[in-house]
Amino acid sequence: MKPVSRFRPGFRWDDVALEPYKPEDAHYRDVSRQVLFGADAGLAAELRYFEIAPGGWTTLERHAHVHAVLVLRGAGRVLVGEALFDVAPFDRVRVPPRTWHQLRAADDAPLGFLCLVDALRDRPERPGPDDLAALRADPERAAFLRV
Amino acid sequence: MKPVSRFRPGFRWDDVALEPYKPEDAHYRDVSRQVLFGADAGLAAELRYFEIAPGGWTTLERHAHVHAVLVLRGAGRVLVGEALFDVAPFDRVRVPPRTWHQLRAADDAPLGFLCLVDALRDRPERPGPDDLAALRADPERAAFLRV
Repeated sequence: MKPVSRFRPGFRWDDVALEPYKPEDAHYRDVSRQVLFGADAGLAAELRYFEIAPGGWTTLERHAHVHAVLVLRGAGRVLVGEALFDVAPFDRVRVPPRTWHQLRAADDAPLGFLCLVDALRDRPERPGPDDLAALRADPERAAFLRV
Repeated sequence: MKPVSRFRPGFRWDDVALEPYKPEDAHYRDVSRQVLFGADAGLAAELRYFEIAPGGWTTLERHAHVHAVLVLRGAGRVLVGEALFDVAPFDRVRVPPRTWHQLRAADDAPLGFLCLVDALRDRPERPGPDDLAALRADPERAAFLRV
């Protein structure tokens, strides 16, 4: 890795690949992934930049590892546990262990954010029917969720 | 930690303390520190926001742990090893292990940046006379460095 990678228009970086969010998962829409500091960077954590296109969303999931998020671009809404939050640049979001979460971009703006995770982490879990029923008990959450 | 901390004018966050860069070190000038995800966040790494006021600089140092930097605000210049780089938002900078480094803000702009480090890390080392002589062998580096 070169010491400095220039930032380029459209939230791209020199020497950073633009990848799909998750190669094998049909439960998200219009999300890209750029690994800024990956497993080869010599750290115990990885820093990724995700961007959700207008109207898109990430997978509704939970896991034991923490997500440490910093919004960089655009606007959107985030579910953390039972609560919904509107977010904007440079709001800080922490997803605690084993907490359902989903991010959605606004209809008229992308949502770009950094997500810091431990390099060693567990795989995400998707909600079962009982989990979904509990999450949808609140009408605002029910309207927000995409599965 | 609340799930979301709002970003506020002047690059501050709700529920994040504004601290001096290093409490006991006279080898830097005009640098503040805000810990966005610290030792209590449940991660193997910490994400801090540092801001150097116009004309200021961080300590010239090296250590075994890696610095993973993402510029967020302003303009400045960075020494990584033997090379100098002008940086701007959202350039990515990696400081490899045991590599001399120093960041300086422009004279007319602050330099605000994220710095990701492992939670478990070694203490920085400052240069001795021989190190300084080697670093100053290049006139551009000699003019840049502050000790």
